[in-house]
Amino acid sequence: MTYRAPIDDILLSLNHGAGLQAAVAAGHLGDYDSEITAQVLEEAGKFAGDILAPLNRVGDKHGIELKHNKVTTAPGWPDAYQRWVAAGWNAVSGPEEFGGQGLPAALNAVCTELWASSNMAFGLCPLLTLSAIDALHTHGSDELKTIYLGKLVSGEWTGTMQLTEPQAGSDVGALRTRAERAADGTYKIFGSKIFITYGDHDMTDNIVHFVLARLPDAPAGTKGISLFLVPKFLVNADGTLGARNDIFPSGVEHKLGIHASPTCTMQMGDQGGAIGYLIGEENRGMQCMFTMMNHARLGVGLEGVGIADRAYQQALAYAQERKQGRAIGSTGTGSDPIIKHPDVKRMLLTMRALTGAARTICYATAVALDIAARSSDPKVRAAATARAALLTPIAKAFSTDIGTEVASLGVQIHGGMGFIEETGAAQHYRDARIAPIYEGTNGIQAIDLVTRKLGANSGESVWALLGELDGIIKDVEASNDPAFGATGPRLRDALDALTRTSKYLLEKLGSSTNDALAGATPYLRLFGATLGGCSLAAEALAARNLDGVAEPARYVTLARFFAENVAVQAGALERNVVDAATGLQGADAVLTA
Amino acid sequence: MTYRAPIDDILLSLNHGAGLQAAVAAGHLGDYDSEITAQVLEEAGKFAGDILAPLNRVGDKHGIELKHNKVTTAPGWPDAYQRWVAAGWNAVSGPEEFGGQGLPAALNAVCTELWASSNMAFGLCPLLTLSAIDALHTHGSDELKTIYLGKLVSGEWTGTMQLTEPQAGSDVGALRTRAERAADGTYKIFGSKIFITYGDHDMTDNIVHFVLARLPDAPAGTKGISLFLVPKFLVNADGTLGARNDIFPSGVEHKLGIHASPTCTMQMGDQGGAIGYLIGEENRGMQCMFTMMNHARLGVGLEGVGIADRAYQQALAYAQERKQGRAIGSTGTGSDPIIKHPDVKRMLLTMRALTGAARTICYATAVALDIAARSSDPKVRAAATARAALLTPIAKAFSTDIGTEVASLGVQIHGGMGFIEETGAAQHYRDARIAPIYEGTNGIQAIDLVTRKLGANSGESVWALLGELDGIIKDVEASNDPAFGATGPRLRDALDALTRTSKYLLEKLGSSTNDALAGATPYLRLFGATLGGCSLAAEALAARNLDGVAEPARYVTLARFFAENVAVQAGALERNVVDAATGLQGADAVLTA
Repeated sequence: MTYRAPIDDILLSLNHGAGLQAAVAAGHLGDYDSEITAQVLEEAGKFAGDILAPLNRVGDKHGIELKHNKVTTAPGWPDAYQRWVAAGWNAVSGPEEFGGQGLPAALNAVCTELWASSNMAFGLCPLLTLSAIDALHTHGSDELKTIYLGKLVSGEWTGTMQLTEPQAGSDVGALRTRAERAADGTYKIFGSKIFITYGDHDMTDNIVHFVLARLPDAPAGTKGISLFLVPKFLVNADGTLGARNDIFPSGVEHKLGIHASPTCTMQMGDQGGAIGYLIGEENRGMQCMFTMMNHARLGVGLEGVGIADRAYQQALAYAQERKQGRAIGSTGTGSDPIIKHPDVKRMLLTMRALTGAARTICYATAVALDIAARSSDPKVRAAATARAALLTPIAKAFSTDIGTEVASLGVQIHGGMGFIEETGAAQHYRDARIAPIYEGTNGIQAIDLVTRKLGANSGESVWALLGELDGIIKDVEASNDPAFGATGPRLRDALDALTRTSKYLLEKLGSSTNDALAGATPYLRLFGATLGGCSLAAEALAARNLDGVAEPARYVTLARFFAENVAVQAGALERNVVDAATGLQGADAVLTA
Repeated sequence: MTYRAPIDDILLSLNHGAGLQAAVAAGHLGDYDSEITAQVLEEAGKFAGDILAPLNRVGDKHGIELKHNKVTTAPGWPDAYQRWVAAGWNAVSGPEEFGGQGLPAALNAVCTELWASSNMAFGLCPLLTLSAIDALHTHGSDELKTIYLGKLVSGEWTGTMQLTEPQAGSDVGALRTRAERAADGTYKIFGSKIFITYGDHDMTDNIVHFVLARLPDAPAGTKGISLFLVPKFLVNADGTLGARNDIFPSGVEHKLGIHASPTCTMQMGDQGGAIGYLIGEENRGMQCMFTMMNHARLGVGLEGVGIADRAYQQALAYAQERKQGRAIGSTGTGSDPIIKHPDVKRMLLTMRALTGAARTICYATAVALDIAARSSDPKVRAAATARAALLTPIAKAFSTDIGTEVASLGVQIHGGMGFIEETGAAQHYRDARIAPIYEGTNGIQAIDLVTRKLGANSGESVWALLGELDGIIKDVEASNDPAFGATGPRLRDALDALTRTSKYLLEKLGSSTNDALAGATPYLRLFGATLGGCSLAAEALAARNLDGVAEPARYVTLARFFAENVAVQAGALERNVVDAATGLQGADAVLTA
């Protein structure tokens, strides 16, 4: 159950699949010195493998404990967190004026994958802190920033996102936690929240909660929600910690996976109200929350990539060691390792191809965010902003769906041992399952893609992206490399299907939104498969031309496998999109108890 | 978390999809009085819902305990087992001369689904007893039958199957447990076995183990394996229990799911050797084991169906109750139940369609077994035997694959609640995951299908079955019912793809077996999707013509949904079969650590 960061694959994906190198070369990343990329990632890989990975199973077995309104994490976790902060990993992409290293979001995206891969339950804590940093940095007052931002950037304090209430899950607007204006400009918060990740823990001496609540005179729904910063301990003017604030964990969930990550019910106001500080303007909290959520959605997509890669590494190691039966054509005398059997090879290649495709989609989203933030050209920034918005739901949903699929294949390759908890494959299968659910279910991502992203600017960002994919396919065909097999034609079929369904949905959006919504999920999958397939092809093309890539032909093999075995689902997915609405007619008579 | 047996769907599937009614009408089932079918199944459904379902969560939470070489099951389980035996459920399909009710295997197949649906961990115990009954009845001596068979048929004693050893999983021939001939005609068994389901428990006063072992002078591999009956307690001549035999549970596994089912490491021979009685002939144990395994494989397929149906029922109930957001076109004032959202509808229909398709495939396998056992016409028996052999790997693998997929969709529909253990959706997701693994992994089933079943008699049984599917599609087209939508063309495409890939694989089997093996898994899936789609269509056609079917149009809707949303994957699956071998070229360079 060791973990080794796949730095070669990652660098190829980041620089050539996701386009970091081209963006740097075009000057879109400001003064970023891309020479340091590999070095930073190598170090991150070491930290993940040496410090975080060994605590993964410990955390799963031990879980967390709630006693006397305090959460205790698993043995070794507070210490590992201190080392994490000391090594500066929390501050990778944090703003420099608050102590951050100001590195591109793309580098942090890779790091997020590595933390999730080595220890998903651990990595979740800083993931939420980063979202909190985004919200505070973008929307907070200078005073709040001065007090809280530096501590959040360094990781000395962690952040939480508090949206969900029992009646308000996907439907955030239904929340009831209330905020009252106090005379001193602060607010008193009353209510309770559920499913709060790292809502309490013992790894830091303070926690900064970001809580959505409703003022007494607020409009109904999402237009009446405000965002408040609610510290666990109040902070004195000199920066030292003051009184315990009135926000406490009152319960923790018994979950399928990520056992080491406390999922808390939070209670506010039992002792007179939790003191909160407004972030941004009253009743504009949803806007702030979207800032947090978009960041978190990409992060969750990277969890999908991370857990998939970990499951792959473990299954590969098992398949290389475990001997059962003789493979056909075997020249050995005894049993062969099961990796020699074609069906096991097929499963492993599927795992690796899906993981690689999702990885590049996530990294490309991060690169777009970097360009949007750093380019000096406003047109380039605008296009990159639209690109990031378009890619975010795909990065989140496609990556987390394949995360669970790959983890399931990982269990299967282990045979009976996969079902035994001490093997570890089952933990990945359990851990992976939350990612398609939280930060907006994958169904919600698909709706977001179709209704908000596809439709933006009459589909302009989609057509621009599909144009780039067309270029990649032409390059594959122009390469005349027989090792690509049917990669070109298969990706072309997929792109054609994606183009047709995009037009179909754009049309339906105007006339019959429900019909478009019915096909949203297969559309997102088709988008992911086409984009992922083209990304792997682009990486294979690059690998053939780069110096210093070990066995570049293997990237061609991988791209080909994806095109011939995964992208070929495009035809069926297109039918699923187009036939979805009529297929649901009469559903009510079927769906009876 | 209540469970209600879907008797209407089951009867339609059994009688008209799986062909029980036609078989009875043709006289192939001997004197079976099909009037009682519905009554028996109604009663079984009540037992499942009232007695077994309430113990499912208890068993998951409590698990089992091993202390002082004895396994204790969860609270309420021994009592439920006694009620089970008293009600005669263990004896449904048992041979009449040993106290069984002699009902068709098809009825028992339905019961197996109901037990798995209500409580998979419980149902697993009698599933293995039934396999043991098969082996003993078919291969055992009269003396052994007299002593053991009646008790196994009634369920007073349970049976185990003991194949697996650490180095011998899928590769049974590698086992090392040894048997020595004793002077009195018995044998002494020494060795240990792993992964033994219900290897020990406290629900009965004796357990009859069926153990594979190797004689000192046995040939290597599977040709040197013998099967022994090894009772937990020796049985005196008068039927009373004698001494404790030298076979003990020495460990239990901590598993991902089916926590209430003890998975034991068994130790034999620490006290001089476990006394065993030969079943069948020396070195012919694999033959006996295949008898047990074929039965068990269908049973595991039915576990897939059962857990899928349970996950569906739970997700449906949640989707009807849980309110979030407004559906488009909603006329209500507040939030709508999430079932109103098209994406949730799509997921629920997918769950139900996959479950229904797998159900009929499993039942059809059982009906073929019944015809093979009961028809007076030797030609009909031979064809039915071949049909059952062909369908068994599909019933096992397709049903258990969709079992995990449907359980995963069930979690997704629950949103965040799906990840919380007390909801119960996560238990189905965990429990379902073993079924694609045990009794021969699904990869092994696919290899069995391609190498042994497809190739038998130059494909004769396959062509006969595909001919029947062709007839169903023609009937759909002849119905001219617009409600079928594109059902006809989609199933036709699927059948064409299945026909072409069957020919392709038959050809490859002669020339290049490894190429055929590479495509075995997608071929099995294609077979399942085509067969399942045609089965649902046959049921829809029947429902339209039957008296007394409530809302027959819903079966047309379901068949159409499957054809348009699932069977459309045929084109991609065909490519996966045909391109599999070339896709694996170069895989070794990709699959490095």
